[in-house]
Formats: sequence, C-alpha cells, structure tokens
Amino acid sequence: MLGVFYSMIVVPGPASPNLAKRISQETGIKLAKVHYKTFPDGESYFRIEDDLKGEEVVVVQSCSPPQDKRLVELLLMVDACKDLGAERVIAVVPYFPYARQDKRFLPGEPISVNTVIKSIESAGADEVITFDIHEVHIMERFSVPAHNLTAMRLLAKHVKSLDLESPFVLAPDQGAMRLAKPFAEVLETDCDFFIKHRDRVTGEIETKEKELSVEGRDAILVDDIISTGGTMAKAAQILKKLGARRIVAACTHPILCGNALQRMRDAGIEEIIGTDSIEGPYSKVSLAPEVASFLSKVAE
Amino acid sequence: MLGVFYSMIVVPGPASPNLAKRISQETGIKLAKVHYKTFPDGESYFRIEDDLKGEEVVVVQSCSPPQDKRLVELLLMVDACKDLGAERVIAVVPYFPYARQDKRFLPGEPISVNTVIKSIESAGADEVITFDIHEVHIMERFSVPAHNLTAMRLLAKHVKSLDLESPFVLAPDQGAMRLAKPFAEVLETDCDFFIKHRDRVTGEIETKEKELSVEGRDAILVDDIISTGGTMAKAAQILKKLGARRIVAACTHPILCGNALQRMRDAGIEEIIGTDSIEGPYSKVSLAPEVASFLSKVAE
Repeated sequence: MLGVFYSMIVVPGPASPNLAKRISQETGIKLAKVHYKTFPDGESYFRIEDDLKGEEVVVVQSCSPPQDKRLVELLLMVDACKDLGAERVIAVVPYFPYARQDKRFLPGEPISVNTVIKSIESAGADEVITFDIHEVHIMERFSVPAHNLTAMRLLAKHVKSLDLESPFVLAPDQGAMRLAKPFAEVLETDCDFFIKHRDRVTGEIETKEKELSVEGRDAILVDDIISTGGTMAKAAQILKKLGARRIVAACTHPILCGNALQRMRDAGIEEIIGTDSIEGPYSKVSLAPEVASFLSKVAE
Repeated sequence: MLGVFYSMIVVPGPASPNLAKRISQETGIKLAKVHYKTFPDGESYFRIEDDLKGEEVVVVQSCSPPQDKRLVELLLMVDACKDLGAERVIAVVPYFPYARQDKRFLPGEPISVNTVIKSIESAGADEVITFDIHEVHIMERFSVPAHNLTAMRLLAKHVKSLDLESPFVLAPDQGAMRLAKPFAEVLETDCDFFIKHRDRVTGEIETKEKELSVEGRDAILVDDIISTGGTMAKAAQILKKLGARRIVAACTHPILCGNALQRMRDAGIEEIIGTDSIEGPYSKVSLAPEVASFLSKVAE
C-alpha cells in the first residue's frame, strides 16, 4: 500500500504509541520517531526526529484520562507539526474529551466539548477522526471535516470468536442502541435496551427492570464508554436476575476509573473487552484497521 | 471605587480563589460565585451562579502546576463566560505556562508558548494580563492586547519590612537583572548578577563564581520562577562562600517542585518569599494591588 500513502507520516502521541504503530503497520505509512518527556514542573515536552515539510501528517493521540494533559499534548503536537512545515494535519483522537458536557444541563455551566473543538481547530487540525463519540450530534459542531468512526464491528468480531452460548446483545440505556444494533448484526443475533435515569444532582443511576428472554443465554453489554462502571453494573444485576448465563461487557473506551472493575465483577460481569482507544490491559481490540481503511479513502 | 467598575465582575478560577477575592476586595468589583468539581474520570466541571450578560468579566486563573489542567480550566472558563453573554473577557493569568519553551532549542521541538497563546485567544479572551513572564518578547506574540505586569515592587516592599542588614540584591543569572534592578531600587541598594550556563541535553546548571562585596551583608536572590531550586541553590552557595550573612530568595512564581525546598535550605537560603501567583505557603505577597491598579486604568 506504500504507493497510496507516499506523502503521509504517522506521528504517535504519548497516549497512543501502540495504536499509532499498528496504524503504520496496517497502512505502510512511515511512523515518525518522537521523544517525549515531562519536565520536573509537569510541563510536557517532545521532539519529532523526522522532517515533516510538505507531508500529510496523521497525529494519533487519544484524550483519555488524564484528559487535560492529553489534550494539551495534542494541541502542542498539531501546532508543532504545522509549524514544522506539514502540509495538512489529520488528528486521530479516538477518545474525545468532554463529550459528555455537550449541552448546558444547568444554567451557568460550560458547554465544554465546544471549547475542546475550538482549541483543536485553532491549533491547526485540518481534519479530525474520532471513535464512537458520546453524542453523534457533536460532529456537526466542527468547522473542519470531522468523522465519527465506530469500533462496533471490530469489537463484535472479537466477541464472535469467544464461542458464546446463544448470545444476546444489550444496550444498558437507549442511547447505546445505535452501537448495540450493528454489534448484534455481526453476531447475527437480537438486541434490546434498558431504560436508565441519571439524577443530575446526585449522579445516582436508576435502571428500570424489563422482561427479556435471556434465561441460559450469554449476554453482551455494549456501550461507548465504561467510566465508573455504574451503568454496566446495574444492567448486569438485572440480567443475572433474569437468568442470563455469562455476562461480557464490550466498549470502545474502557476508562474504568475508581473501583469500576470491582463493581462490575461484583455484579457478575466476567470479561471486559475494550479497544486501544485507551491503551492498557483492556485494549483487546485495535482500532487500527478502521483508521487504516479510512486513511486509504483519504489518500485515494 | 464601585462607580468605576459598575459593569465588571471577577470570576475566580479554581487555581486562584484567594487572589480573585483580594482583587474583588481591592477594587470593589463583584466576585462571582462559582462551583467547581472534578468528575470521577478527571474532567473539570464548574458552574457560574451569576448572570454575566453584558458584563466585562475578569477571569482570574493562574496556570501553575498542574499546568495542563489549569490551562484547560482557563479555556473552558473564558469560552463559557463569552457563551453566557459576557461583553468582554480579561484573562488574568499570573503564571503563564510553557513560557520556557518560547523557541526551538533543538530541531523538531514545539514552540509551546505559541500554542498556549493561540488556544487562550481562540477561547475568546479579549485581553490578557500576566506577571513577570519568563521572556518579555513573548508578549509581542499575542494578537489581543496583552500586558506583562511585575511583582517586583510588591515583593521589594515586603522584603524592606524584614529589617535586613545592609541588603544586597542578586540576580542568579543575567536574564533576571530586569527584575533585580527595580527590586534594588525600592530597597535603595545595589544589585549584580551571576553568569549561568545550562546544558541543553543534561539540564545541568553551572554558575560561574564572581567577586562581590557581600561580606557580612544580607543577600536577596531575585528571580521570576523558582522551579527545582537548582539555580537559586548554586547562587546561594557562592554567596555563602563570599561571606554573605542571611540569604533570602524572592520570586513571583514559587513553583518549588520536587525537592526544591530542601535543596535551597541546604544551600543556606533562610526564607522564600513568593506571591499568590501560586497560592500556598509561600504566597506571602498578593498580586492584587497591581491587578487592581491596572483594572482601574482599563475601567476609566
């Protein structure tokens, strides 16, 4: 594929070294050598060894926790690539930060995701790629071309290989149905959803019970983000009550903060499958094939 | 002074609640009520209780460590103030982050401070106030009016009250002479500087010895930032050798990371005097009077 991508180079951000490497391997696009460090006072530093003049640069940097550090690194990298002569910069930001503050829930609140978009664009990104953003309507707020890819087909293919018993796909809330549907299609099975209510003041989650025919079947809970694990745990408890056999949780962004793991295990979730949007023990599926396929279209 | 500032409101950032309060007290400008929290995943949240419609808003937020978190909070606050109807936003950013990465020291490095300026401007700041920025030429890179105020007169007045013995002011490197001179003027005494060399690769500091008549005198080391304390410690060691009596270190931004305190104490520095650019045990001098005096000129 080298011919197609001759003027492209992948610049790995400190949050996504493995994903960047995989994208380079999948596409044959050269991987830039970048040195990173954090100064003793906490400021980020990097140095790009390769010449970027006239290149189309793909900066790969997820903005998962610590989000603010990751975001500032992204801004510094995009701006530096431009300043070092890059012709265009495509920012691959698998986890898009502050996407859950996409509207003013209470008066006087910021619409934080708008500020993030503005900052990435002002840094010089010419195109943005993200994955399974929390609310799809956010994509309309970009001024530059922006693309919301999905990890669902990749995740479902991985789950298919697990040899589950009569699998059933469940979205822990109605919003996740847009993810659960394509997931269930790959598994050639049915899917449904629970109704969830979050108290805006206390943050408490209430998930309504619902009759489902899951007795003796393996259930796959599908969502974009697993953060505190609260939503997944509530859904798993109901599934267990209904007689589900094994419960697996699949998501694009395994943030898993605080005691999320323990909470999910206690609720009966046996396995957690995430992607390298967040590099770590739960990034069992790589987003690289989807990024590669997208870049091949850009390069054509 | 209420009449002058009738349409202004001070919005305190999470890094600078006390400085914001002092500015409000000095000027009589109303202090907005702001609630902050950090979500379990690490994202920042706030809510401004007051109505900002048509107001001239003074956002006070130093970007000291953790710089990236403080910077993103600043961007979110400036953007939110505008979005909530503010007529103009003045960003008071006493510590300006990434000011030490103001040029490309090695090929392939970012010029990080430019990215920071761009992001603050794109968030919507109409005017920026900072204090004793590491390199004054950085101020020319702003597109909006930007002002570099100095804490030196305030710090020197505080030091004057300490009843020092025949005080002598010393800049630990030549760059700090622009700060040491006005400082010495307030104390009505003389000042000098050491020659410092920093190895760009190892980060090692070498300070050249120099004959100075400090025998039996109290010395005040003056700089913009005390970060690891290395520069201050080297200078103090030489001053001790030359027979200086007490050694005091004064700076605008007492970052004091790692073992800076121990290092400075070991070198014979008896007291550290900083400002509320960084709120904590060493913010012995408030920047509020300088900000108030500047705002009174803006309001006229």
